[in-house]
Amino acid sequence: MSLPVLLCVLFLGCAVQPPVVDPLPSWNETGAKTRILQFIERVSNEAGPDFVPVADRIAVFDNDGTLIVERPTIVQFEFLYNRIKEMAPDNPAWIDEQPFKAVLEDDRAALRSMGFRGRRPLVDAAQSEVFQEDYDAAVKRFLENGRHADFGRQYLDLVYAPMLELIALLEANEFRVFIVSGGGIDFIRGFSESIYGVPRDRVIGSSVKTDLRQRGEELSIYRKPGFASMNVSRFKPMNIWLHIGRRPIFAVGNSDGDLEMLKFTLQGGFPSMAILVQHDDAEREFEYSDDSVEVRKYAAQNDWVSVSMREDFGRVFVSDPVPAN
Amino acid sequence: MSLPVLLCVLFLGCAVQPPVVDPLPSWNETGAKTRILQFIERVSNEAGPDFVPVADRIAVFDNDGTLIVERPTIVQFEFLYNRIKEMAPDNPAWIDEQPFKAVLEDDRAALRSMGFRGRRPLVDAAQSEVFQEDYDAAVKRFLENGRHADFGRQYLDLVYAPMLELIALLEANEFRVFIVSGGGIDFIRGFSESIYGVPRDRVIGSSVKTDLRQRGEELSIYRKPGFASMNVSRFKPMNIWLHIGRRPIFAVGNSDGDLEMLKFTLQGGFPSMAILVQHDDAEREFEYSDDSVEVRKYAAQNDWVSVSMREDFGRVFVSDPVPAN
Repeated sequence: MSLPVLLCVLFLGCAVQPPVVDPLPSWNETGAKTRILQFIERVSNEAGPDFVPVADRIAVFDNDGTLIVERPTIVQFEFLYNRIKEMAPDNPAWIDEQPFKAVLEDDRAALRSMGFRGRRPLVDAAQSEVFQEDYDAAVKRFLENGRHADFGRQYLDLVYAPMLELIALLEANEFRVFIVSGGGIDFIRGFSESIYGVPRDRVIGSSVKTDLRQRGEELSIYRKPGFASMNVSRFKPMNIWLHIGRRPIFAVGNSDGDLEMLKFTLQGGFPSMAILVQHDDAEREFEYSDDSVEVRKYAAQNDWVSVSMREDFGRVFVSDPVPAN
Repeated sequence: MSLPVLLCVLFLGCAVQPPVVDPLPSWNETGAKTRILQFIERVSNEAGPDFVPVADRIAVFDNDGTLIVERPTIVQFEFLYNRIKEMAPDNPAWIDEQPFKAVLEDDRAALRSMGFRGRRPLVDAAQSEVFQEDYDAAVKRFLENGRHADFGRQYLDLVYAPMLELIALLEANEFRVFIVSGGGIDFIRGFSESIYGVPRDRVIGSSVKTDLRQRGEELSIYRKPGFASMNVSRFKPMNIWLHIGRRPIFAVGNSDGDLEMLKFTLQGGFPSMAILVQHDDAEREFEYSDDSVEVRKYAAQNDWVSVSMREDFGRVFVSDPVPAN
């Protein structure tokens, strides 16, 4: 090998071209994929007119329905139900008291009909009056042992493969990726690093009130009843500001609770992109649009990137087999 | 140059030894420096018994009095006074109304005697009922134009050089450094990246209530009166949990408001270090200990690393001349 060629190889450039690898292999070759790839290339190209400095390359992803299956129930509610059952022996009165009764009897129809407010006591009972470490351990147990009723797989097997690839591609282009979810911040932290590759400090979510209490020799975080913040709708941009202190330039969501976050992302001074995931694949996932009436209207009017799970996802879940090419 | 030597040089290793560079040149060769260097080496050494995985290498620094001068007034209060004066023409009633009157008359003794509660209306008046972008612009103007009364230098020239070196050393060893301050989160974000090299999303501080409001075509963050969180004492660990979701292993503070954060840091499962900065240098900075009675007692009893500005700092401010070696 001559010295010039050796130098080329050492510096991974010039004469030897690396093979072209598709960074989004689980995406079909559709317009959505093209627009996403072009956007990331544009803002990362230092020589181009749409270059965005690394510090401002902030991407935000909703969680339920955007990164992971949310039907028939969001995963965290399955955790709550499971934990209520775990705790039931110590709370004998629950068997006659709603909404606990419905959980203990597996009466899903009753739970659905109660709405979020009716189910709310479950949230406090299952997630507060407990030290943070014990809560984290309960989340871990559930994620290891729980199974999705329809798919029979672990919940974390029902993360969307195309979205994991998109997160990795953004990180490779020096974006900093944050999860911005209506779900509980500490629940999502139970798997954000191992599954999404998103560090715990880049998770923003709903949070409960806390206290600092002595536990033996240690000061520990104690979870109190009641929400400190419900991270949906207008509160998503407000919590983005609190945690990140910047307007994102890239946002992905799937429901009306993401509308303000998507708008907020598009209204900064940099080139930006908003993506709306549509659940239109009854065969491989679920088909529903009842929770995205407003955002779909707005997305259509404003030419946002619409991602159809049926059309644009070549593979849906990380646990699905990789199709032979 | 022979090929082997060329390869060595290219890979910065083997035959050519890099010169030994002191990573903390502004620190005197005292016990504090030795303990800090040894700790960082221990937890970063993958082969050693005290190795801490990169994800858990979280370091937290208080701001006022730990990273930057805080006497005779903390910098943010100078900003408030300045802004009240800027706003006075539109608020003629202030000239007869405390605490505004004292600000407009530069009556520092009166302001001191009011205590934080008495001065509190200044906080709301100067920092709320304003869109976030306008607030950020006001902070920027102040930092560019303001001068410290005693030193005659810009405030950001009064950052402690040894602490900047310590932050850089931690980052070089794959720590993630966060600021955890009783000061306003958005005020500190006005200089955290450019001065400390700490990204805006790694600043935790006191925060005001916010809203999301329409501003022309855009949704913008609007600052409302009242605190959402006062980030001192027990609230420091609670906000560390909210923003980081991990117990730090390295913490630096200087006052009683840092005691819980320092304790919380030392009580996790990993090797950890707490550092208390002591303001004992009347000549080069200020000498005071009135705000650190409890924490000094605790630090002495528990053999925490005590940093004496007089003994351990070779150079104090980033704007001080580098001593000839």
